[in-house]
Amino acid sequence: MDMPELQGYSGIVRKLLEQENISIGDEIEIISDGRKYRGILMARYELADPNYITLKLSNGYNIGIRVAENTSISKISAGAKPMFMRPPKPQTLSGLPNVIIISTGGTIASRVEYRTGAVRPALNADDLLAIVPELVEIAKIDTEVLYSLFSENVQVQHWIGMAEAVDHFIHKGVDGVVLTHGTDTMGYTAAALSFALQKPPVPIVLVGAQRSSDRPSSDAATNLIAAVATAAKAPFGEVVVAMHKWHSDDIIALHRGTRVIKLHTSSRDAFRSVNSRPIAYYQHGELKVVANDLNPRGSNNYTYKPKFDERAFLVKFFPSMKPDILSILADSGIRGFIIEGTGLGHVSSDWVPIIRELTERGIFVGMTSQCKFGRVNMNVYDTGRDLLKAGVVPLDDMLSEVALVKLMWTLGNLGEGAGLEEIKKLMLMNIAGEIYSRSLPNTDSW
Amino acid sequence: MDMPELQGYSGIVRKLLEQENISIGDEIEIISDGRKYRGILMARYELADPNYITLKLSNGYNIGIRVAENTSISKISAGAKPMFMRPPKPQTLSGLPNVIIISTGGTIASRVEYRTGAVRPALNADDLLAIVPELVEIAKIDTEVLYSLFSENVQVQHWIGMAEAVDHFIHKGVDGVVLTHGTDTMGYTAAALSFALQKPPVPIVLVGAQRSSDRPSSDAATNLIAAVATAAKAPFGEVVVAMHKWHSDDIIALHRGTRVIKLHTSSRDAFRSVNSRPIAYYQHGELKVVANDLNPRGSNNYTYKPKFDERAFLVKFFPSMKPDILSILADSGIRGFIIEGTGLGHVSSDWVPIIRELTERGIFVGMTSQCKFGRVNMNVYDTGRDLLKAGVVPLDDMLSEVALVKLMWTLGNLGEGAGLEEIKKLMLMNIAGEIYSRSLPNTDSW
Repeated sequence: MDMPELQGYSGIVRKLLEQENISIGDEIEIISDGRKYRGILMARYELADPNYITLKLSNGYNIGIRVAENTSISKISAGAKPMFMRPPKPQTLSGLPNVIIISTGGTIASRVEYRTGAVRPALNADDLLAIVPELVEIAKIDTEVLYSLFSENVQVQHWIGMAEAVDHFIHKGVDGVVLTHGTDTMGYTAAALSFALQKPPVPIVLVGAQRSSDRPSSDAATNLIAAVATAAKAPFGEVVVAMHKWHSDDIIALHRGTRVIKLHTSSRDAFRSVNSRPIAYYQHGELKVVANDLNPRGSNNYTYKPKFDERAFLVKFFPSMKPDILSILADSGIRGFIIEGTGLGHVSSDWVPIIRELTERGIFVGMTSQCKFGRVNMNVYDTGRDLLKAGVVPLDDMLSEVALVKLMWTLGNLGEGAGLEEIKKLMLMNIAGEIYSRSLPNTDSW
Repeated sequence: MDMPELQGYSGIVRKLLEQENISIGDEIEIISDGRKYRGILMARYELADPNYITLKLSNGYNIGIRVAENTSISKISAGAKPMFMRPPKPQTLSGLPNVIIISTGGTIASRVEYRTGAVRPALNADDLLAIVPELVEIAKIDTEVLYSLFSENVQVQHWIGMAEAVDHFIHKGVDGVVLTHGTDTMGYTAAALSFALQKPPVPIVLVGAQRSSDRPSSDAATNLIAAVATAAKAPFGEVVVAMHKWHSDDIIALHRGTRVIKLHTSSRDAFRSVNSRPIAYYQHGELKVVANDLNPRGSNNYTYKPKFDERAFLVKFFPSMKPDILSILADSGIRGFIIEGTGLGHVSSDWVPIIRELTERGIFVGMTSQCKFGRVNMNVYDTGRDLLKAGVVPLDDMLSEVALVKLMWTLGNLGEGAGLEEIKKLMLMNIAGEIYSRSLPNTDSW
C-alpha cells in the first residue's frame, strides 16, 4: 500500500485517530459539542484545515467536523474496502435487442478512491455491467472502451471519434447505442453528435452520473438502466441525454441532444431541457414518449457528417467589455463568433462598428442570449436593429453552447471557402431540433 | 409628420392597405386561410419580408400574418395615437414616506413608437408617475432623471453615477430609493450597487419591465408599485430587484441584489434568485419578508465604496477553447479573470500551465460555474485540484456575473498595488450576501 492509513490528517486530530486505532474507511462515531455523528472516515485533501475530520454519512454526503477539546471519537467497525463483484458472464438471452455501451469516461465510469477521497475514472463498460447486473435482462450488451476522459477534457477531436465509433456500430447493426460521458460537457457532446449523426436509425443515448457509482446516493445505476432501455426499445432514432428528472430515482428524463444543458453543479437533476420539454421519460420500466416530431427508429434518412472546425469562438458579453477582443481573435484565424448577448440579443452600441468590420471581412457573427431561456429578437430595440444592420445573425431560440457547436460543425462541413450567406443559411436551418422558427409567443409558461 | 403612413410596407401588401385607406395605428381585420385576425396595424422593420402584415393583438402581442391571394383586409376604426395623460399634480399626503425614483432608462421608462413598432426610451420618472397614479397614495414621491439608457449600454461609470446619486439622496434623508433600469443588465447593476452601497439605512430597489408601459400585458405598473411600496415601507436596508415572481400580476419578488439574474429573454417572470430565495414578496399591498439575515432599516453600518476597476474579464470556457486568450488579455492590462468553468469548476487540463503563469504574475483567476445553480468544488476531481495548485480561487456559490462585478469592485477598492492574497481574501469575504460559506449540501432541492 503506497498511501498512509490516515492521509490528510496531521497534528492533534491524527493523534486522536491513532489512539483509537482508526484507519480511513473505518466506521466511526464522533461526539462534538453535544452532537453525535456516525459515518465512514474519509481521507482528506492535503492542504485542508488540519482541525477537521471528514466523514461520509449514510446518506452519501461528506461533512467536515471540527475537532475541539471536548470532541470524542470512537471506532464502530473496521472498514471493508468496497469491491466491485463481477457477476457470472451473462447467458445471452435470445431475442433481446443488441445494445453497445461505449465508455468515454466521467463520473459514471469512476469510483471514489478511498485513500484520497477523490473521484477517479476507473471503470470500463464491463465494470458498469458488473455493478448494474439488471442490464443483462434488458438487452444483449456489448461494451467498448473508447476514452477514459473527464469531460472537461473532451475536445472536438473526441466528438469526431465518438461519432465514428457510433457510426461503426450503427453499420454493424446494433439496436441502440449508449455512450457514458462525464456530465460537465455532455450537453456540448450531445449537440455535436446530433449534428454529426442526423436522423440515425437507432437511439443514441448519452448518459452520465452526478455521483460516482460506489456512493449510496449514486444516480449511475438508475440513469444507466434508463439509457440502456431507451437504446434497446425506444421507437425513435434520436440523440438524447438520459439523466434524473427529479432528485428522486423514479423518473429519468430523455432530453433532446440539442436542447439540454447542465444547470446545476451537483444536483442529481442537474440537466434541463431549455425552450423545449424532454422528448421522453423512463419510469417503472416503461418508456413514455411525449414529443411527436421524432425521427422513427429504422428510418432511412440517416446522414453521417462528422466534420467540425474548431475556429469558432463563444464570447459572453458583460458591461464595459471592450470589443477589441473580437478583432484580435479574428486576426488569429477565428472564422466565426457566437456572442452571448444580454436580453433579447444585445451588446453595447460601441460594439457595432467592430462587428460590421468583422462581417465585412466574411467572419460570421451569431447572437444568442445569456438568459438561456427564451429567444433572441433583435427587432424590438434600436441596439438590436443596429446589430442586424451590421450583419449579426440572430439565432432564435438556440442555446449558446449549441450554437457554438453548430457553428463549428457548419464551418467544418462547408469548408474553407464558405461565404457568409451559406453559413447563415445553414445556421438558421433546423438540423436536429436545435432551432424552432418563430411562432406565436408563449413566453409566460417556460 | 416625417414618417410615411405605411412605413415598412411595400408591393402588393402596401397596395391592399392603401385601397382600404388604412394607416399604421388603425384597427383592422384580416381574414387569411379561413382564420380571422383583429388588431392594430403596426409599422414594420424595413428589411423584413414584404409579404407580411404585423398586427398588435388585444393581448399585447405582435403577430406577423402572411398575405396570400385569398387574404382580405378591412378597416375597423381609425387609430387614435396613444397619449400619456398627466394627472393633476398630486397633493402631498402628509405622513407618507419620502421616496425618490431615479430614472436610468430601459423598457420601464420607454414606450412603443407607433410609427416604427419599436420601443424607445422616452418616459422620465414624472411620466411613470402619470401612468401609475396609485403611487401617490403609497409615498411622497420625488423624481430624478439620471440617465436614459438601454441597459446593454450601461457601463461601469454608470454604476458609479448611480451609486453617487443614491448616496446623495440617502444623505438628503429619503426613506427609500427606486431606480428604474433596463432589464438586460439590471442584475449586474444590482450587484454593483450592493458592493458600492453596503448596509444602507434605507431600501434601494431596482425595478424594470419586460413589456413597455403602453402594452396591455405590461408589467411596468405592478413592478413599480411593488418597488415604491418596498422602498417606502420595507423594514430592511438592502439593495433588491423588484420583478414579477410568476407570469401573473399577483406576486412581485424582491430579489437580493447579489443573487439575481435574468433567466428568460422575454417572460414577465424572467428574473430568478440563484442559490437563494427572494428576500421578500409583495402581494395584495403587503410586503412579506422571508429572509432573516437582513440589514435593518436605519442601521448605522452604512458604508459607501463606489470605486470599480474595469480591468477584469469574464471568460466562458468551452470544449477545445485555447487558453492563449488569457495571456493576450493579461498583456493588454487585465488584472483579473473570472473563468466560468464547467460543472464543479473545471477547464481542460491544458489550461493549467497558462493559469499558473498568470497567478505567478500576480493576476487574479477566480472560478465560477456555467451551470449557474450550485457551487464550485474543486476538491473532487483531479482537474480541480490541479487548478487549485495553479492558484485558481474557487468562488463557492457566487454567480459568474456577480463575481465579475465584485472583482471590478475589489480591484477598484484595493488599488493598483494590491497583492493576490489581499484580492483573494476580499473576493471570498461575504460583503452583501453574494457568497455563502460551505454548509451541509442540500443540492437536491434547488
